[in-house]
Amino acid sequence: MGANEFGSRFKFVSFGESHGPSMGVVIDGCPSGLAYNESLLLKNLARRRPGQSELTTSRIELDSPEILSGIYEGKTLGTPIAIVIKNNNTRPADYDEVKINPRAGHADDVWKNKFGHTDPRGGGRSSGRETVCRVLAGSFAQMLCAQLAPQMKVVGYTSQVGSLCLSEQEEQKAFDENIDSFAARFPSRKSTQAQDHILQAKTDGNSLGGVATVVIKGATANLGQPVFHKLKGDLCAAMMSVGASTAVELGAGISSSQIQGTDFHAQTMSNVYGGIRGGISTGEEINLRIHFKPTSSILDVAKKGRHDPFIVTRAIPVLEAMVWLVLADHLLWMRADRI
Amino acid sequence: MGANEFGSRFKFVSFGESHGPSMGVVIDGCPSGLAYNESLLLKNLARRRPGQSELTTSRIELDSPEILSGIYEGKTLGTPIAIVIKNNNTRPADYDEVKINPRAGHADDVWKNKFGHTDPRGGGRSSGRETVCRVLAGSFAQMLCAQLAPQMKVVGYTSQVGSLCLSEQEEQKAFDENIDSFAARFPSRKSTQAQDHILQAKTDGNSLGGVATVVIKGATANLGQPVFHKLKGDLCAAMMSVGASTAVELGAGISSSQIQGTDFHAQTMSNVYGGIRGGISTGEEINLRIHFKPTSSILDVAKKGRHDPFIVTRAIPVLEAMVWLVLADHLLWMRADRI
Amino acid sequence: MGANEFGSRFKFVSFGESHGPSMGVVIDGCPSGLAYNESLLLKNLARRRPGQSELTTSRIELDSPEILSGIYEGKTLGTPIAIVIKNNNTRPADYDEVKINPRAGHADDVWKNKFGHTDPRGGGRSSGRETVCRVLAGSFAQMLCAQLAPQMKVVGYTSQVGSLCLSEQEEQKAFDENIDSFAARFPSRKSTQAQDHILQAKTDGNSLGGVATVVIKGATANLGQPVFHKLKGDLCAAMMSVGASTAVELGAGISSSQIQGTDFHAQTMSNVYGGIRGGISTGEEINLRIHFKPTSSILDVAKKGRHDPFIVTRAIPVLEAMVWLVLADHLLWMRADRI
Amino acid sequence: MGANEFGSRFKFVSFGESHGPSMGVVIDGCPSGLAYNESLLLKNLARRRPGQSELTTSRIELDSPEILSGIYEGKTLGTPIAIVIKNNNTRPADYDEVKINPRAGHADDVWKNKFGHTDPRGGGRSSGRETVCRVLAGSFAQMLCAQLAPQMKVVGYTSQVGSLCLSEQEEQKAFDENIDSFAARFPSRKSTQAQDHILQAKTDGNSLGGVATVVIKGATANLGQPVFHKLKGDLCAAMMSVGASTAVELGAGISSSQIQGTDFHAQTMSNVYGGIRGGISTGEEINLRIHFKPTSSILDVAKKGRHDPFIVTRAIPVLEAMVWLVLADHLLWMRADRI
Repeated sequence: MGANEFGSRFKFVSFGESHGPSMGVVIDGCPSGLAYNESLLLKNLARRRPGQSELTTSRIELDSPEILSGIYEGKTLGTPIAIVIKNNNTRPADYDEVKINPRAGHADDVWKNKFGHTDPRGGGRSSGRETVCRVLAGSFAQMLCAQLAPQMKVVGYTSQVGSLCLSEQEEQKAFDENIDSFAARFPSRKSTQAQDHILQAKTDGNSLGGVATVVIKGATANLGQPVFHKLKGDLCAAMMSVGASTAVELGAGISSSQIQGTDFHAQTMSNVYGGIRGGISTGEEINLRIHFKPTSSILDVAKKGRHDPFIVTRAIPVLEAMVWLVLADHLLWMRADRI
Repeated sequence: MGANEFGSRFKFVSFGESHGPSMGVVIDGCPSGLAYNESLLLKNLARRRPGQSELTTSRIELDSPEILSGIYEGKTLGTPIAIVIKNNNTRPADYDEVKINPRAGHADDVWKNKFGHTDPRGGGRSSGRETVCRVLAGSFAQMLCAQLAPQMKVVGYTSQVGSLCLSEQEEQKAFDENIDSFAARFPSRKSTQAQDHILQAKTDGNSLGGVATVVIKGATANLGQPVFHKLKGDLCAAMMSVGASTAVELGAGISSSQIQGTDFHAQTMSNVYGGIRGGISTGEEINLRIHFKPTSSILDVAKKGRHDPFIVTRAIPVLEAMVWLVLADHLLWMRADRI
Repeated sequence: MGANEFGSRFKFVSFGESHGPSMGVVIDGCPSGLAYNESLLLKNLARRRPGQSELTTSRIELDSPEILSGIYEGKTLGTPIAIVIKNNNTRPADYDEVKINPRAGHADDVWKNKFGHTDPRGGGRSSGRETVCRVLAGSFAQMLCAQLAPQMKVVGYTSQVGSLCLSEQEEQKAFDENIDSFAARFPSRKSTQAQDHILQAKTDGNSLGGVATVVIKGATANLGQPVFHKLKGDLCAAMMSVGASTAVELGAGISSSQIQGTDFHAQTMSNVYGGIRGGISTGEEINLRIHFKPTSSILDVAKKGRHDPFIVTRAIPVLEAMVWLVLADHLLWMRADRI
Repeated sequence: MGANEFGSRFKFVSFGESHGPSMGVVIDGCPSGLAYNESLLLKNLARRRPGQSELTTSRIELDSPEILSGIYEGKTLGTPIAIVIKNNNTRPADYDEVKINPRAGHADDVWKNKFGHTDPRGGGRSSGRETVCRVLAGSFAQMLCAQLAPQMKVVGYTSQVGSLCLSEQEEQKAFDENIDSFAARFPSRKSTQAQDHILQAKTDGNSLGGVATVVIKGATANLGQPVFHKLKGDLCAAMMSVGASTAVELGAGISSSQIQGTDFHAQTMSNVYGGIRGGISTGEEINLRIHFKPTSSILDVAKKGRHDPFIVTRAIPVLEAMVWLVLADHLLWMRADRI
């Protein structure tokens, strides 16, 4: 098992330092004959890109993916799919300071301590930049799911901005909303208020924590392996592989610890179990809530006004990508469940 | 990657159905020359054993581990360590009903749907019985850590019983308490009250959710790999591999989503980051909170009075074992970090 | 990847020291619903067992397998299959000498050098005793192949005893012979002569090298992955995992290096390519020739008359088991070749 | 385990189709702080390059590696090392014919049968072009070995061209010769004669089989894991991962099957055991002989005069690279052998 690998059957390796020449992935395990959907890939990359509004960092990343292998005449070959994106918008000079003074709250010092020799520019591999690799691989996972299980849908949205939450009614409608049309991907009539919060934090040199919700509908039943690759375990590991995440909830999640069994089990199954029982998908709706701490880049001398005051909005496409990767992996894995 | 394997360098495979002949593990990757600590193994098994008080299920498991390989003259050989425990206290007749009517809230029906052919007796592999395998393997992981990093300590306790929580002061003292001396492993002056809650639930045919906290002190710095095997990701996956868990929090966890960055980062590092930055241990205290739903065995016709009204107490030694397994794995993994 | 694991999709871990309590395996990845064929397992174990004639070591191993998990009502559950065999016929006293003086030609000293702490009795894990684990796992692989690809047949035989070879005609007929009915599993009218050679070597305190041939007929086409898990690579690694093997040939093998291309490619495909092209099975006959050195136990003070003068005869069932394991693994792997 | 991955601790994934945009690798598991030796990489690539003399194919590959990640200021970061080489010299038009008529002796038809959708141009992944990936990764493995075990040397040479062999004396001197200075890398006073053979075969539209020998001197002792990752097993799997190989011998190899034990074991250890006992390196010289069939490109309508009449010469740097990869992997693996 490599440190930069994810997945078992549909697996990929991620590479690239934030300010090195390129980011990229190699996917090993994608079946042949899958139609390559370029517009899906570009759309997902666009959704991840920072600098889309004044709400996020003004660093502009023009992500132009280059397919190096694995696709021929519009279809996968069953061979490794290598995809590379050049890093264009690097400002190494910004990071001269970092070389001497590791940034507070960042991982600069822990990496230095672990590896001895590190790339001080922009966090290297611990930068948010690395998440572009997840979107590359996740888009192919999504293409695979679209072909093998077209009824599966994954929707992520911001469900909490600082202390501002969606109402219960807004939560129920969120899956069907056009999430990207809301400021901060917060599908609420208070989205403007949320936006103001975030902008104020930016002005103040401050930042906000928050929560992302990811909902899977139409999940194929029987996904997941019963003990160490329970669907819930693999999903939670995937969510916690994203930087700044601090907690993950499945289904009733933290609220499940506070009520009595008879009340709990009287509720609708899908709300309670999160669509997974014994580690295996039931076909019901799966709900994940991922908590994020306020970004630490407020403490970062190098970022001078380029910091993200609120990370959740940008994390949404990355979380969705990670969910697709887990689903694709288990779709292939279950092919060997029975004789 | 096998479905029943855990770990990368220090890895093991778990086997056994709840009502089959035996449970067991094979550990592959334990270095040679490790002193075998039998009393530690027996103590950990005793702590996991149900039927220790009227608070838990009255099913008695006399767990007598047999070492089949890997140990010679009191030390590990560097060869696979196989350990087996016979299943003695099985009551297959109790499960005749289940064969026809899958138990609500259990995984019987999802397993049947996935695998076609299943063992209906006691949940097979999805039973709590499987966790004895974690304690077997985890005890060897603990022995390895004890020898390589004797300053590391792992303590788990119940921090919430239904809606009853530890006070802030009790939380701070918990690590140094004799946890097993408290009813329900709830280190509080209200432990008797908690016990009453649980007994009442049992009497009522009801069950309670709750929270376990696991604290790691003296963690070796530099544990964890930066992207897909972040220490936080591996720990959370380990926690979510335990049945009935519904959420996991690291450090400030869910509360981190609700406060502003300047306040957040002004706090003591250890509380906020949970001792892990950039996916890598800093040497500071690591805090995990694992939420559990109320047990579903209240709905189980087969259990007739043998059900656990509150699962957290029994989960503690299992969670600790899983934490040791992650720590041991990364202690070996980091040997290849640098040239 | 563990040191004692074999396989990717149909995988198993092997455990046990020659003179420890037990040998065994855990198979992780066998699909559910496979009919368990006990008589096949017992027959394979019996074929591997030494002491069957005066030609082999007189050490008697009564191998009585115990299934600990994974089988219920005669079928696999899709859960790990654990199988254990007790070591009964151990004579530790024979090995007191070894503790002080490592046996020449054995691995005792290299193990000691590598691991520091070793089990000096009977070679520990490097003993031929370990091969019983291969037969356990291989028998389940064979059951899987029998159900998924009943046309596949694997036959191994001795094709060379010292300098005594099968005639070309005997080679051609070998696959259809009752191999076990021939002395030394050497399907030749000279089998008695071969037997005399071997007995003479035993009397002289000498040993003989030889060659095993394994033929696969009716192989499912499309087995094998193109680059690092070519069917030929996986088969050769499997063959070289057996102790005392010194060379392996596929198809035309060593003779292919000595002839011109036009002559070579004019031959029947199956002879030339060994049924594998580009790493992938074509459906044609696959031929493997495995060379063995003369056993080193002649130099072994501990074995006092219990040594095997010729290892190939006993290796046949082990080689067949390893071939079945590779075939089963790739039968499952190819399920994800195409969308 | 991915189909295009190699190695366990020092591992890499290979990608690229012969006539696609690029070839490349991602190495995951190289420790930080390793000095990057660019001239070694370029030298190895140059040695692998075809078109170096009239003896090999006239296809010219200008291999200019681009490092995309993992190196900073001349040293490895401990992050994935991605390296890409553009495919420049592709002649897709040559392969129009292939699309309709798969080439005899090639893998075109078996790939088509397995994957359904394939890249007909130049063999795709089954092309000799893929071996450039091995040289990329192998060069980093060699750098690691050079730093961790500078006494280890790996030398490969042609030991047989058709029926023309090195004399015993030439074999003994080969390790110390400047192999690349000999025609066909055949370190013999008959190298000109060998060259004539090969040129004649080319003129005749014919091809020759042959043998490569790879010798490892100064091997660190204790490399290899005892059962399924024996050093001999991993080396043989590595050798058989190279196209057109048909047999592999270790140490005395095939000759070991033909002599009696007392004679065999009386020989110098290093000749007999090939420097590996019980699967583990002893520190003595390791000898591998790899047999190759005559190339099938003689049958290839697309290659019109570009075919390689003799593959062994070009295979030498690839075989050396694969050996370095196995050695580097086990150098890291053995760090966890003992407590």
